[in-house]
Amino acid sequence: MTSQCLFCRIAAGDIPSNKVYSDDDVYAFRDINPAAPQHILVIPRKHLSSLNDAGPEDQALMGKLLLSARSIAQELGFADDGFRTVINTGEHGGQTVFHIHVHVLSGRHLSWPPG
Amino acid sequence: MTSQCLFCRIAAGDIPSNKVYSDDDVYAFRDINPAAPQHILVIPRKHLSSLNDAGPEDQALMGKLLLSARSIAQELGFADDGFRTVINTGEHGGQTVFHIHVHVLSGRHLSWPPG
Repeated sequence: MTSQCLFCRIAAGDIPSNKVYSDDDVYAFRDINPAAPQHILVIPRKHLSSLNDAGPEDQALMGKLLLSARSIAQELGFADDGFRTVINTGEHGGQTVFHIHVHVLSGRHLSWPPG
Repeated sequence: MTSQCLFCRIAAGDIPSNKVYSDDDVYAFRDINPAAPQHILVIPRKHLSSLNDAGPEDQALMGKLLLSARSIAQELGFADDGFRTVINTGEHGGQTVFHIHVHVLSGRHLSWPPG
């Protein structure tokens, strides 16, 4: 937990969010600026500023982020229609909040290229 | 390994590809239809048709896909500039090959929304 980090504070409940899932490792909530009818952010409670900062010790946690994205898609009923998961890392990736997060987008056909 | 699966055959070396990384679990190669100056696909050797088919037993493997994406970005020299990782699942996600794969894109600023 980094007290200055927006997403650490959201996961801790210090800043309100539209929660869709929570457990000891992971917190998920709706993006306040949705880019699709369904747009959820899945974040680890552990502060990692980006995928560049994830080490071998974070392998299980990274896997859990993806499995949580899948579970949330099933829970919210859009897994069968399909969805896109996106992680932005650094400037070229378009990262804006420096706490790693998986975007889960659905509810429309996501086009190609992905940005 | 599914003999009819394009990506299983690529990982097995039966179909040529422009390999960038390989180990016992993961194979990575350049997309033949790049959507960015750097566009790599990271796939597990295990056949999983999509993220929807990944179960709890695949958590470590899913984590390894993301850590491999990061390692490849570092190895190829674009980690610091940044990159975007994308997994398409099903129709709304725009999935075209039904063997799970992580797109790793860099070499330009990836815009928003991601498709």
